[in-house]
Amino acid sequence: MKITFLGTSSGAPTRYRNVSATAVQPEHGKPWVLVDCGEATQHQLLRTPLSPLKLEAILITHIHGDHCYGLPGLLASCQLNGRTAPLTLVGPVAVWEYLQAVMQFTEMQIDYPLQFLAVDERLDITAGGFQISAAALSHRTECWAYRLRESQIPLQLDVQRLRAEGISPGPEYAHLQRGEDLQLADGRWLSSTDFTRLSRKPRVAVIAGDNDRPELLAGLCQGADLLVHEATYTADILQQVGPEPQHSSAERVARFAEQQRIPNLILTHFSPRYLSKPRRSNDRLICEIRTEARQYFNGQLQLAEDLASWLISRDGMLLRL
Amino acid sequence: MKITFLGTSSGAPTRYRNVSATAVQPEHGKPWVLVDCGEATQHQLLRTPLSPLKLEAILITHIHGDHCYGLPGLLASCQLNGRTAPLTLVGPVAVWEYLQAVMQFTEMQIDYPLQFLAVDERLDITAGGFQISAAALSHRTECWAYRLRESQIPLQLDVQRLRAEGISPGPEYAHLQRGEDLQLADGRWLSSTDFTRLSRKPRVAVIAGDNDRPELLAGLCQGADLLVHEATYTADILQQVGPEPQHSSAERVARFAEQQRIPNLILTHFSPRYLSKPRRSNDRLICEIRTEARQYFNGQLQLAEDLASWLISRDGMLLRL
Repeated sequence: MKITFLGTSSGAPTRYRNVSATAVQPEHGKPWVLVDCGEATQHQLLRTPLSPLKLEAILITHIHGDHCYGLPGLLASCQLNGRTAPLTLVGPVAVWEYLQAVMQFTEMQIDYPLQFLAVDERLDITAGGFQISAAALSHRTECWAYRLRESQIPLQLDVQRLRAEGISPGPEYAHLQRGEDLQLADGRWLSSTDFTRLSRKPRVAVIAGDNDRPELLAGLCQGADLLVHEATYTADILQQVGPEPQHSSAERVARFAEQQRIPNLILTHFSPRYLSKPRRSNDRLICEIRTEARQYFNGQLQLAEDLASWLISRDGMLLRL
Repeated sequence: MKITFLGTSSGAPTRYRNVSATAVQPEHGKPWVLVDCGEATQHQLLRTPLSPLKLEAILITHIHGDHCYGLPGLLASCQLNGRTAPLTLVGPVAVWEYLQAVMQFTEMQIDYPLQFLAVDERLDITAGGFQISAAALSHRTECWAYRLRESQIPLQLDVQRLRAEGISPGPEYAHLQRGEDLQLADGRWLSSTDFTRLSRKPRVAVIAGDNDRPELLAGLCQGADLLVHEATYTADILQQVGPEPQHSSAERVARFAEQQRIPNLILTHFSPRYLSKPRRSNDRLICEIRTEARQYFNGQLQLAEDLASWLISRDGMLLRL
């Protein structure tokens, strides 16, 4: 399971960080899923091996421009480049209203099937090799986090139980291992789920939108290998800015991740005030975000960078590619 | 007078060319005008000395996405960066409808004054140091070309005429030279325009939108130093594609510019099929556009490149910066 950051800046792009977009793909294979689509996401994709034609679903966390202004251009370019495969768009209803209005006023036409699903707590779809669910966050507009769980884990037969039931190796074993239920010659029905288990734990990543209450993610993060969450500010700047924008500090997210024992945390969506290299003596530095989070979180901590990719290995380790 | 190309690709961005946007600025001074605003125009600006806060007017040629999908993001970033100065937006009415819809559905708020002017043949505004007028083009949607004429040329006194009227050097000369009318002690009214002339010819550039009938520009190009026009295809590809997209070939534009004796021509808005360097033996090359235009046009010919700037000198020469 691979995560590639296409944009890691909050609000406006900088020379080094674009606005929000995150690609998630299985360890092998071309299909993938996009979470958020800030302006110039399609431009960032030109600098990666990810193909827009293999994109299976776009999950939008919320309607703010820095998370969705790249949507019309990406969809239009898919059309120009001959896409015929269906595409699923998930997000708050406002995302669909926005897109429909843009398409209408700018005479944009799409011939490939584009399906919209309004996100809610019951979301349960499979796309790009992931089973996808969602939880509501706390922001100044409707905002969501998405949980992506590997969906194509090979099944392992419970041979002991099969033997106990008197079923010998044969074609039935292959059916069950492919997840198929079947009827034996003696009339008995065998359910695949009774005689198989996943051959390994599915990897799980939670990609959250803007949010000032990380504790809302407790349920969605159960068993997650990785949480990607905004840390727009350090705690001192969050206090200066005040609660109205409803963003999190590095401290707030780190405390939550530590409390939940989430093994891997990647922070993103940084205020453009945090620079990689200081230009003036009072410039704020991006490493302050890391330093602050490190005080409260003992797991594997990373700060997202544009066009950087991380792999969650099968044993749940986070490896920078 | 300086022209900077922020995007020179047609339809979709490539790794080396963004979609349409062209900055026009006076030779000196910070204010400037933007013609078209494709997606990621604000990103391109980060790579130039042009400040979005000094942008005085945005002129949109037509509503297609590759010419306007950068508008919401640019305007939103101006707000985030504390812009208070008014901004004028000119274009077809659909541009305003599109922008209003985006602002409404994405909860985008702008506090600086944003004035919209629907473009028509009577357009006559001054912005960024230019007097701006427009002419309608032929495309598959309403589309316009804009003429930008330097508006701040110092006046030169017609001393001979002043003397003939018995007016001696004094404070009246200064008033007239500043363009002010005045009344003399003897009751006579003097009009500045009667006693001054422009100290030099104002430079004029015409920046056209998508268009399959360059001859529609004959009026707007009268006395122009520079025409910037799309040459989406070479003639052979235009024939293959057919007339429906309503674009021009290099040949068509070059013939027109030659016929009109336009001294300087910059072609832009190239189909992404034209590459700078061949990858496969049947790849089409951008130099074919130049070769074709060169056959029909004897003036100064240039192909636009992203982030390249040209100066029109006071004597009407086109100089690459």
